[in-house]
Amino acid sequence: MSNSSQYFKGIEKIKFEGIQSDNPLAYRWYDEQRVVAGKTLKEHLRFACAYWHSFCGNGGDPFGEPTHLFSWNEIADPVDRAKAKMDAAFEFMSKLGLPFYCFHDVDVVDYGNDVAENERRLQALTAYAKQHQDASGIQLLWGTANLFSHRRYMNGAATNPDFAVLAHAGAQVKAAMDATIALGGQNYVFWGGREGYMSLLNTNMKREQEHLARFLQVSRDYARSNGFKGKFFIEPKPCEPTKHQYDYDSATVIGFLRQHGLLEDFSLNIEVNHATLAGHTFQHELQVAADAGLLGSIDANRGDYQNGWDTDQFPNNINELTEAMLIILEAGGFKGGGINFDAKIRRNSTDPQDLFHAHIGGMDTFARALIAADAILQQSDYKTIRSNRYASFDNGNGKAFEAGTLKLEDLRNIAAAAGEPAVASGRQEYLENLVNRFI
Amino acid sequence: MSNSSQYFKGIEKIKFEGIQSDNPLAYRWYDEQRVVAGKTLKEHLRFACAYWHSFCGNGGDPFGEPTHLFSWNEIADPVDRAKAKMDAAFEFMSKLGLPFYCFHDVDVVDYGNDVAENERRLQALTAYAKQHQDASGIQLLWGTANLFSHRRYMNGAATNPDFAVLAHAGAQVKAAMDATIALGGQNYVFWGGREGYMSLLNTNMKREQEHLARFLQVSRDYARSNGFKGKFFIEPKPCEPTKHQYDYDSATVIGFLRQHGLLEDFSLNIEVNHATLAGHTFQHELQVAADAGLLGSIDANRGDYQNGWDTDQFPNNINELTEAMLIILEAGGFKGGGINFDAKIRRNSTDPQDLFHAHIGGMDTFARALIAADAILQQSDYKTIRSNRYASFDNGNGKAFEAGTLKLEDLRNIAAAAGEPAVASGRQEYLENLVNRFI
Amino acid sequence: MSNSSQYFKGIEKIKFEGIQSDNPLAYRWYDEQRVVAGKTLKEHLRFACAYWHSFCGNGGDPFGEPTHLFSWNEIADPVDRAKAKMDAAFEFMSKLGLPFYCFHDVDVVDYGNDVAENERRLQALTAYAKQHQDASGIQLLWGTANLFSHRRYMNGAATNPDFAVLAHAGAQVKAAMDATIALGGQNYVFWGGREGYMSLLNTNMKREQEHLARFLQVSRDYARSNGFKGKFFIEPKPCEPTKHQYDYDSATVIGFLRQHGLLEDFSLNIEVNHATLAGHTFQHELQVAADAGLLGSIDANRGDYQNGWDTDQFPNNINELTEAMLIILEAGGFKGGGINFDAKIRRNSTDPQDLFHAHIGGMDTFARALIAADAILQQSDYKTIRSNRYASFDNGNGKAFEAGTLKLEDLRNIAAAAGEPAVASGRQEYLENLVNRFI
Amino acid sequence: MSNSSQYFKGIEKIKFEGIQSDNPLAYRWYDEQRVVAGKTLKEHLRFACAYWHSFCGNGGDPFGEPTHLFSWNEIADPVDRAKAKMDAAFEFMSKLGLPFYCFHDVDVVDYGNDVAENERRLQALTAYAKQHQDASGIQLLWGTANLFSHRRYMNGAATNPDFAVLAHAGAQVKAAMDATIALGGQNYVFWGGREGYMSLLNTNMKREQEHLARFLQVSRDYARSNGFKGKFFIEPKPCEPTKHQYDYDSATVIGFLRQHGLLEDFSLNIEVNHATLAGHTFQHELQVAADAGLLGSIDANRGDYQNGWDTDQFPNNINELTEAMLIILEAGGFKGGGINFDAKIRRNSTDPQDLFHAHIGGMDTFARALIAADAILQQSDYKTIRSNRYASFDNGNGKAFEAGTLKLEDLRNIAAAAGEPAVASGRQEYLENLVNRFI
Repeated sequence: MSNSSQYFKGIEKIKFEGIQSDNPLAYRWYDEQRVVAGKTLKEHLRFACAYWHSFCGNGGDPFGEPTHLFSWNEIADPVDRAKAKMDAAFEFMSKLGLPFYCFHDVDVVDYGNDVAENERRLQALTAYAKQHQDASGIQLLWGTANLFSHRRYMNGAATNPDFAVLAHAGAQVKAAMDATIALGGQNYVFWGGREGYMSLLNTNMKREQEHLARFLQVSRDYARSNGFKGKFFIEPKPCEPTKHQYDYDSATVIGFLRQHGLLEDFSLNIEVNHATLAGHTFQHELQVAADAGLLGSIDANRGDYQNGWDTDQFPNNINELTEAMLIILEAGGFKGGGINFDAKIRRNSTDPQDLFHAHIGGMDTFARALIAADAILQQSDYKTIRSNRYASFDNGNGKAFEAGTLKLEDLRNIAAAAGEPAVASGRQEYLENLVNRFI
Repeated sequence: MSNSSQYFKGIEKIKFEGIQSDNPLAYRWYDEQRVVAGKTLKEHLRFACAYWHSFCGNGGDPFGEPTHLFSWNEIADPVDRAKAKMDAAFEFMSKLGLPFYCFHDVDVVDYGNDVAENERRLQALTAYAKQHQDASGIQLLWGTANLFSHRRYMNGAATNPDFAVLAHAGAQVKAAMDATIALGGQNYVFWGGREGYMSLLNTNMKREQEHLARFLQVSRDYARSNGFKGKFFIEPKPCEPTKHQYDYDSATVIGFLRQHGLLEDFSLNIEVNHATLAGHTFQHELQVAADAGLLGSIDANRGDYQNGWDTDQFPNNINELTEAMLIILEAGGFKGGGINFDAKIRRNSTDPQDLFHAHIGGMDTFARALIAADAILQQSDYKTIRSNRYASFDNGNGKAFEAGTLKLEDLRNIAAAAGEPAVASGRQEYLENLVNRFI
Repeated sequence: MSNSSQYFKGIEKIKFEGIQSDNPLAYRWYDEQRVVAGKTLKEHLRFACAYWHSFCGNGGDPFGEPTHLFSWNEIADPVDRAKAKMDAAFEFMSKLGLPFYCFHDVDVVDYGNDVAENERRLQALTAYAKQHQDASGIQLLWGTANLFSHRRYMNGAATNPDFAVLAHAGAQVKAAMDATIALGGQNYVFWGGREGYMSLLNTNMKREQEHLARFLQVSRDYARSNGFKGKFFIEPKPCEPTKHQYDYDSATVIGFLRQHGLLEDFSLNIEVNHATLAGHTFQHELQVAADAGLLGSIDANRGDYQNGWDTDQFPNNINELTEAMLIILEAGGFKGGGINFDAKIRRNSTDPQDLFHAHIGGMDTFARALIAADAILQQSDYKTIRSNRYASFDNGNGKAFEAGTLKLEDLRNIAAAAGEPAVASGRQEYLENLVNRFI
Repeated sequence: MSNSSQYFKGIEKIKFEGIQSDNPLAYRWYDEQRVVAGKTLKEHLRFACAYWHSFCGNGGDPFGEPTHLFSWNEIADPVDRAKAKMDAAFEFMSKLGLPFYCFHDVDVVDYGNDVAENERRLQALTAYAKQHQDASGIQLLWGTANLFSHRRYMNGAATNPDFAVLAHAGAQVKAAMDATIALGGQNYVFWGGREGYMSLLNTNMKREQEHLARFLQVSRDYARSNGFKGKFFIEPKPCEPTKHQYDYDSATVIGFLRQHGLLEDFSLNIEVNHATLAGHTFQHELQVAADAGLLGSIDANRGDYQNGWDTDQFPNNINELTEAMLIILEAGGFKGGGINFDAKIRRNSTDPQDLFHAHIGGMDTFARALIAADAILQQSDYKTIRSNRYASFDNGNGKAFEAGTLKLEDLRNIAAAAGEPAVASGRQEYLENLVNRFI
């Protein structure tokens, strides 16, 4: 176990030095004195590093070869290579001060085609990660299994038309769950990158979705019987890599969970760019989840609104995040989750420093957003304006309607008697300005 | 009651004269000898005329004034004006041979701000429509209430923050339901054009959706208690006019119906362009509805895939409709519904003939699609290829998994024992070519 | 001439009272002490009110009737009605402190089908506007003719297949140009809402574009021979109302101007949402225009990135505008133009106050953006980082290449001799954070 | 040199056996008796195989590893590996009967970082390709250099901020041009995958575009001085891999060529999916190029209209291609180019047969489209309807306007005298139906 790699050599641990425009590494989140709504920024904003983007992503794209070249990849033995990568990962997280990380099984160590050998590799790295966690205090926010990269999953994993592939997916989930439990992982995530279809012409969608539900049930049962107390998260995404994915958006996933009796154990991990790819705003997806009591965790990033790609850029949109934090604060925060930076530096960001700048920019934007959202909730008429809009349902006929004691004929008679209602402004521009003023 | 208007003067009733490229008015659907899967084309394809587009739409757009000028609009009295419009409508449908029509309350007669007066007007026109139906044999596929055009609904109808507006929506639904029942309407549709939000900042989404559910419940109860036996349809749409609408897509609506105990009475009316605006294909939305046993009816049109607008063009995409008819045929057809041309001629299509050409093009494309889809199902290996893909679940471990008798550990052990599964081509290009060959 | 209408009654003139979150009407732009890059904010940011949105737009949308009801519309006589509207307009602009306005001919007074009568009406209102301008000090930033709303233009104006319609467009431009000159308008705009096609199947694109070029030439010649000294602006837009418009984006318009010898007199009026509808960023369109020396003016608003509509919301995106102001400042500001709020309040923003809030939010966001952009240019390494990236072209072989003295063979030999070049980070995350830090 | 590989073993040469739905390998294009507009289908439709997709593409995507595993990739020596790949490529093209192929330098043989060694490799394979061409009769439609995959090009090739990288791009173009000339290539293509920007914040767009123009000039000069007589093609694309590419669309490229004096030697290679990514239709891009006399060649494929990705699926949209063939036929065909299948089979299409089905489907769709388009032009009123729309410009005042002898005042006086023009239907639905009837 090593705490200093060649890759991040010469970069110092981040310390809070006040917010100054000439010091790009001194950002709000590190300010331990700052308290918002009774908690420090660090208690609110449980940031996690995404192992895959930061230490496995190589900058390759569909038109170009890798640009991010890591020295540890030159080590031949897969377990040694994985340990060297893990050393660098914990060095990075320690220097940055990140309290959490998240991983897929194959991020941690390369998998081959032999189930038992893969299990041995993951167990070796699980033990190694345990040492790093103990030494650094960094915790596992959630673990998961990558059921989308291997060629065997090209037609799906839990929804593959071939049962033999589904069984392999089961083997991977079992091992990843074992690792998550061993490392004290607080949650376990399902992201069904290949659970969907490329063409309806060769797809039995109903049968595939029933297989997916069954797969989630047996996975949950296994975890519970092995002592896992955390939440299971489903991460919605409408498309990419699959042309159409079953976990399209929050409403679709919630409907699926309700239909298959999974509401009790599962909640949602919402990713910013996945929301926008589904035609929603991030805020919308958060609100849908919150309204169902299923707001579990988020994958923080941003997409490019214009190109329809999952660009996984680091978050930097202060307006978007302030509106998001309004919803999260009003919902009482995440249910067990945190803020995982499921984001990657650009292909041409080839300096090790770029990875630091990217994370710090994201962390600071969230910190600003939290501070602004709290101020809006505490100091402005934001909440009052909204609740006043619905005042007519708080008593009288409106309340009776909510209670279910009015019939359609009653509504008709009330309308006929009352005459044309007054028109009331939605005051959207005022409210949008209000948000901007607190930023 | 009159059967000949100034507007469609000189245009003859359509007769089938065989398919000849020099006769643009002799199309397949009129061929009564053609039988597909045991039924004539007319029995399969229950086409309906959309009253609003064909007789109320004026060609105006956000940047331009009306271009379609109807002589009946010069009549001052609202009821007389409505009757003249209805005369022209039945003349058009009779000449075209359309078996069905659909309407909103305000399509039939102009509404004002007085509930009782609106009811009187609609009753007058209901009686008049009854005469036209009896004389022509044309039937009402479904009726509905327009709860989106009046300024009172600018913040929503059943989801308006003001109970007084909700009550007006109830009054309108009651009257529209009465008219639908009186005219023997086979179904009743809810399309929530303003049921959604423009800005989350001023919206209590949870409360609004609960109001919507309650509203549907009381509407259903009224209709049932007044003898209505047909289906209620919800028509999904993700946006426009509202930035975000609650009935986003099929999966969202089905989840909502399940949550609120409405699955028994409600099913879906799927519109082509609404599917694409939600990021889906029309085929996807049909399949989702069919898998839930809720494929009620369709609104036939097409959008422009590139501009994000609800262009409501007449359907003419033979590939898209053939794939759609595959799903509809395999699902056993619509549950009580039909094919409503929720489509409008272009703003600069100002000849009365344009309305005929538009409908005929749509009808012929559907007829071609039905013939091709039936041939694919009867003559090709299309169904076999798909069912063979899932053969591993028809017995052995796959069947046991479906039956729920395998645990996650079992899946792991099966995978470890079986070794790496063979990769199987999805044969997408072959299947796409197959569809094209039958067109 | 009146300075107080019923509509804006009770709303006071805006005064700067410092930036306080509890005073939503006290914003930066009004701070006359604030100097940036040697000029006051008011000198930099020449805001204009768009007559059409603020005083003609009625809140109607394709699914709903008007919601903004103006008392002046109840006046029967068109000229009297127009004068009452103009009174309210100047009252609004005066209270808000806006220094400029912009109009189409038909915004100012309703047009009919009689060329001479329309000219008389416009002349009457031109005289009236002159009085208001003199009294208030408000100036005309630009005038234009609306060649898209009337039904005669449904197939195009200057590109209409029918010469008779083109002639009518010429009549309108002549009168609008006369009015612009009479009012001391600083510029004249062409926005070709119907100059494009709905279907290529009925379109001779080449012939239509040649007509458009000829039309611009004769319009320019007329204006110049009548003493107009200002710039002509073309406003690019890719679509809506026409499915495809000829003035697609900056690059397309610049190519067209170059091809037809119009570069001398014409430059560009760039609208934010038109940029995004073309698949570009606003910043991109500004940069393209600036690089060609054709950055004339802007139409300030914002669209919704997700729905493909021209929503014309008021600008409030501080990140977007800061990046835009970087480009505008580096380009030396606009060439004769200003910042026209081509934006409208939402359909359900029905209070007169909403129009004030909307404008003030836009003005303040621009002011913040200007201040931030200036600070970035003055205080950060933003410019240095960019210029350093291109240093290899400032001397040696790179400079020789720019000068045109290297052949392809030379490049090959230089590359072979130099070996593999070092990879250099683009530092995108650092630069994005840098912008955020100055906001 | 070998003509039979392990990979395509057992697949027979395609022969025309009539159009029968039970024979998926007997398609129209092979019918040598079929003559359209005086030429056989093969003379019209000069199909080319894209070396990169068919023999280099491995089925990998951003979320998954390769799925298409080619036996030749197991050969260690790069030149031997390249020869084995070329054997398979010519076997495939011969069995399919494809008359042309297209390549990038690195498709043919793997490149490293040594300029001279890369040249040696490409020369070895050029000699080998010459033998295959001679033996099979297959010709090179065009060659090109891949200036986007290598990490050195991550910030651009001809537009890289570092001159050292630009020099490497020059070295590659020189070698690729030499190979193209040696193989009798009929054209040479520039596709600037990395010529654009990822962020404007670090980009000097003007300087980069000037470098690009200079680069094209020196490349042309080299080719001409070495005897190349063919056309140079620019292939427009708006985005991907670069967020914004300089060769955005046809109009942008034509403007660039005109500005930099390159119109004489360069024309356009239009790709279907690139057109749609730019917000245009394929037909639009073809028409723009044709109107400028620059319709050189096409890259045939299709995208998915809904996801914004460059999916490069094989063409199968009969409506789209029929409308495209209308434009191509009316323009007199391509200027030296052909139809290159820049398309790839889906990631899960893992059978060697899939590659045949994909190409045959594309070829047949083009053949159907050509036959339909010719019939529309010969047998229908399609051309007449369009030319009649513009009849008012064929004489009288309209003709005078085109000739430039009317002033704006003249237009005004003509309009005033003539009164309100009649409205004329655009007949879009009729024309759309007409196209469908001939399919």
